[in-house]
Amino acid sequence: MPRINFQPADRTIEAEPGTSLLDAARRAGVRIRNDCAGKGVCGRCVVEVKKGNVHRLGGRFELKGGQVLACRALALESDLEVFVPVASREVTEDVSVFEIEALPDRFPPSEALVKRLDLELDPPSLEDNVCDFDRLCRALQKRRSGNYTASPQLLRELSGELRDCGWRPGVTLSAGECGSEILHVGRADSRRPCLLAVDVGTTSLKAELLAPGSRHAASCYNSQVIYGPDVISRIMYCQQNDDGLDRLQGMVVGDINRLLTSLLERAELSRSDVWACVTAGNTTMMHLLAGISPLWIRREPYAGSCYHLPPLDAAAFGIDINAKGKLYCLPSISGFVGADISAGVLATDIAGDPRLSMLIDLGTNGEIVLGSDEFMVCCSASAGPAFEGETSVSGTRAMPGAIETVRYDRGLKCSTIGDKPPVGICGSGYIDLLAVLMEEGIVNKSGKFLDGGDGCMRRSGEDGCECVVVPASMSGVERDIVITQADIDNLLRAKAALYGAANVLLESVGMEWTDLDRIMLAGAFGDKINKENAVKIGLMPDVERDRIEFVGNTSLQGVIRAATDEKDYGLVHELAKDITYFELSTHPDYMQQFMAAKFLPHTKTEQFPTVAAGT
Amino acid sequence: MPRINFQPADRTIEAEPGTSLLDAARRAGVRIRNDCAGKGVCGRCVVEVKKGNVHRLGGRFELKGGQVLACRALALESDLEVFVPVASREVTEDVSVFEIEALPDRFPPSEALVKRLDLELDPPSLEDNVCDFDRLCRALQKRRSGNYTASPQLLRELSGELRDCGWRPGVTLSAGECGSEILHVGRADSRRPCLLAVDVGTTSLKAELLAPGSRHAASCYNSQVIYGPDVISRIMYCQQNDDGLDRLQGMVVGDINRLLTSLLERAELSRSDVWACVTAGNTTMMHLLAGISPLWIRREPYAGSCYHLPPLDAAAFGIDINAKGKLYCLPSISGFVGADISAGVLATDIAGDPRLSMLIDLGTNGEIVLGSDEFMVCCSASAGPAFEGETSVSGTRAMPGAIETVRYDRGLKCSTIGDKPPVGICGSGYIDLLAVLMEEGIVNKSGKFLDGGDGCMRRSGEDGCECVVVPASMSGVERDIVITQADIDNLLRAKAALYGAANVLLESVGMEWTDLDRIMLAGAFGDKINKENAVKIGLMPDVERDRIEFVGNTSLQGVIRAATDEKDYGLVHELAKDITYFELSTHPDYMQQFMAAKFLPHTKTEQFPTVAAGT
Repeated sequence: MPRINFQPADRTIEAEPGTSLLDAARRAGVRIRNDCAGKGVCGRCVVEVKKGNVHRLGGRFELKGGQVLACRALALESDLEVFVPVASREVTEDVSVFEIEALPDRFPPSEALVKRLDLELDPPSLEDNVCDFDRLCRALQKRRSGNYTASPQLLRELSGELRDCGWRPGVTLSAGECGSEILHVGRADSRRPCLLAVDVGTTSLKAELLAPGSRHAASCYNSQVIYGPDVISRIMYCQQNDDGLDRLQGMVVGDINRLLTSLLERAELSRSDVWACVTAGNTTMMHLLAGISPLWIRREPYAGSCYHLPPLDAAAFGIDINAKGKLYCLPSISGFVGADISAGVLATDIAGDPRLSMLIDLGTNGEIVLGSDEFMVCCSASAGPAFEGETSVSGTRAMPGAIETVRYDRGLKCSTIGDKPPVGICGSGYIDLLAVLMEEGIVNKSGKFLDGGDGCMRRSGEDGCECVVVPASMSGVERDIVITQADIDNLLRAKAALYGAANVLLESVGMEWTDLDRIMLAGAFGDKINKENAVKIGLMPDVERDRIEFVGNTSLQGVIRAATDEKDYGLVHELAKDITYFELSTHPDYMQQFMAAKFLPHTKTEQFPTVAAGT
Repeated sequence: MPRINFQPADRTIEAEPGTSLLDAARRAGVRIRNDCAGKGVCGRCVVEVKKGNVHRLGGRFELKGGQVLACRALALESDLEVFVPVASREVTEDVSVFEIEALPDRFPPSEALVKRLDLELDPPSLEDNVCDFDRLCRALQKRRSGNYTASPQLLRELSGELRDCGWRPGVTLSAGECGSEILHVGRADSRRPCLLAVDVGTTSLKAELLAPGSRHAASCYNSQVIYGPDVISRIMYCQQNDDGLDRLQGMVVGDINRLLTSLLERAELSRSDVWACVTAGNTTMMHLLAGISPLWIRREPYAGSCYHLPPLDAAAFGIDINAKGKLYCLPSISGFVGADISAGVLATDIAGDPRLSMLIDLGTNGEIVLGSDEFMVCCSASAGPAFEGETSVSGTRAMPGAIETVRYDRGLKCSTIGDKPPVGICGSGYIDLLAVLMEEGIVNKSGKFLDGGDGCMRRSGEDGCECVVVPASMSGVERDIVITQADIDNLLRAKAALYGAANVLLESVGMEWTDLDRIMLAGAFGDKINKENAVKIGLMPDVERDRIEFVGNTSLQGVIRAATDEKDYGLVHELAKDITYFELSTHPDYMQQFMAAKFLPHTKTEQFPTVAAGT
């Protein structure tokens, strides 16, 4: 079999003739960027064949010299040496750790999903010789009423442990399906059991270690992106590959474990200190994490297998915390409104607030919740990951070097995250860019490039008209950073999907934008979203600006609340059941609303009076 | 290493010099009778060394020629050939199957611990697209309110199964810790899930297959008897051997599986038809079955690890029923009053009856429950297995050839179970024999052989005075069947322990024998217990005879009730908690009562007026 060597990683594997370089690279553990699940349409997996010959499948991309798309180049009989350029390298291995405000020393609180109680039991005597388990439960019930359960393994260890610690055990408890589960009985120990809170996003994961004095959060890319940028590609991968589900599950678990490792290093703690991993993500990610096929989510009528998962044994799922620890998955609401939204509703307290609120979560998908303490409805809009940079030619995630603000001052002026050389454009950058292009008359209200000129601001590119945001000479990626007509169309579709969906949801309960007390935009845009520009492009409605809030990652915030307060964990399950899901795909008004919102800011300018007045 | 060949099984193993022949035989899978856990005192493991030399440890038995006690003979450097005579062979491999009244065709009932419901679900639609698990629970709740849980494995299979069966699933449910657990979802199937009910005795196990039309029960010896006849020997074996607990657990599980195999053959069913194994036994046996160390039961204050075990996954414990099936252990009451007694209380309905009842369970140990619908107390008496034949020279279990009745008509006249040649004496035979020996003036009221004569009825044996019940020429075991002074002393100690304990229990609640409406004797004596003789020897009190009942194996009866009615399963857990355990070992009156009862029938003859009048 031919041997394929990948540079600069210098990893070699044998591969059958006919294997694509992309597949070979994956097996060699070399991660190559690819956003179209190997269909040859995203053009991101460009590699250079330095030695040997490959068979090139045809496709839309014309590449020079030894350059090929890894997904369209098949190994033949000869050995190969393949070079993966920087721009094509998937950086999923990297975990970014950033500082947060230090958690209190007495954290997690005693209401957390996992807690430790130090007890003093009366030793057994002839007058009082109930069994050891009953003796323990009796002491526990004096401190916290309720039902207590234990695994057969714990029952096996119990009597020895109680005697070893002289009947003064430290008892680790977790919130279970019927009362509390006794996870561990051992010597009393002043250390609090720690928990890991994780937002499992389609594009990236973000985690915090809930430990005394913890000062860090960590994020990493979702390794599954090599099988496609959105949940639909991942579901199809599961459908088309027998081991697809196992592989995707292993990847997301691997990502969680990598985040954990980074956070434990900073906190100088060990895996055995962590007794629970509490997670939220969209419905498909929750299915994948639990190893449940997400197949049916993709097919009408889009019903998943299970939205309320019980507490799971973390070890059985490969989560590398304490061997007795638990994996908690917050509940989903429907096939396309996931646990991340339940968590967001918990974090923003929509259900506990008499004010009328709307939460718009623009992640890889887009979900909207509308409600108050009297009712809640939600819907999902297929916004796509345009604002996460995933589908645009020069798009990038909110990472160092990402352009996060753009303004016009005799030319486009950009600022990047961390002031690094620009590598691409992230969500907040695209909001500004759209607003600037419109204001400067580069695009019309339909987002179409206007005729005339052929300079940086408007030129003919490979895919039609495009605008150069940063020329190659000033960029950090040795190529022009551009926004193309296709990019703009995608962004407009995304914001139109969201705005249109929000309008339908409002109409369905007989309300208008002006009835809303709070309009909250959640997501990972970068910190510097420009509120005026968000209104100008019609992503946010034209209402009093103080009603608009950017609330950040409400999924992770909700996970932390549920992890640190058993009552909130119970509450989020109630909330998830109380929210009425509203199916947009069958709603007669939705397409019309969507089309009307595919303008800058909107076809109905009366809905955007301040924008109209400004132009 | 020397090779040891065992005949007639013709099994050979290598063993280190210094290994006892008993240990070597066990490892070779050759089962040799041994009732003293290898201490060299029971004299049952006699084998013949045909070739090679062994080192003989000293001991109380003088053996001729090549005969040695397997436990006291150690391998040296040479190869050995060892013959195991019939009398020394442990017959634990045998399963006895006997006919019972056929169970109804519609059995087990729909209230059983495992049940199947055939459902019709509304397929999901855009208007009703809750997740598949909620859809299933909604349909279940229409049929039976309550909480429903499922394992991660079931959740993985659920969506596929529901679609495969066209949304008309057969759902198998088991009674769980919090509501019902959904064990299986598949095509609707008219077959009812079957259950296996097992009484796990120290000496033998008895099982019934609860299946439509089932007509058989099965019993076998508890394979653990090779490590000693009583629970104390087994606990010590666990303490002295690192793998002791695992080994004993494997043995009892193996026994259950053997019983199951025999019953399935008769019923023409397969393992996958059996969804639950429901068990009761003494507290130590329940610990061993669940793989929990029984160590602390033996040490003052005799508290076990856990008396109320949750429903367990049968497969994880090696129980060879359906891979998704459950193992239920009924609850114990104290270290020496086990689940067999809880089951007995359920079966005899003591707690639901206004009459004052006493249940005396004379198994390998002896336990007593006294109570009514207003109160219940219980105690344990260390009666020992004398009435099970285990500690007597010619004792045997109630098996074909066991002497079950004895009368005097110019010599001892015996009848055996199945009219087979006599192989030994079982419990009901010993009751008769004691009565006859006393009536005929062979023994005095202290059970001591009286002087005079030297014939069959009274002669000098190896261990002092003894009486020949059946001479070797007429027996089925090529040796005299005898009752020795030591045997009689053991029997008297056993009945005195029980009667004394019953007296203390009565006194402790301010009552007398004559207050009792029902006195029930449970145990495996053989079917032909002579009520008059039981009173004559003071095993039963001298009350109106119609108040005395022989109730058989109430443990198995209770297991069947709990297995076939979820309410009774709940009830037995309540009962086990409601019974007040009375510790005899510290009671000031117990030793005096015990001593007073070590006579035939009793030192206080006024307690046995009809017996006194008869003599």
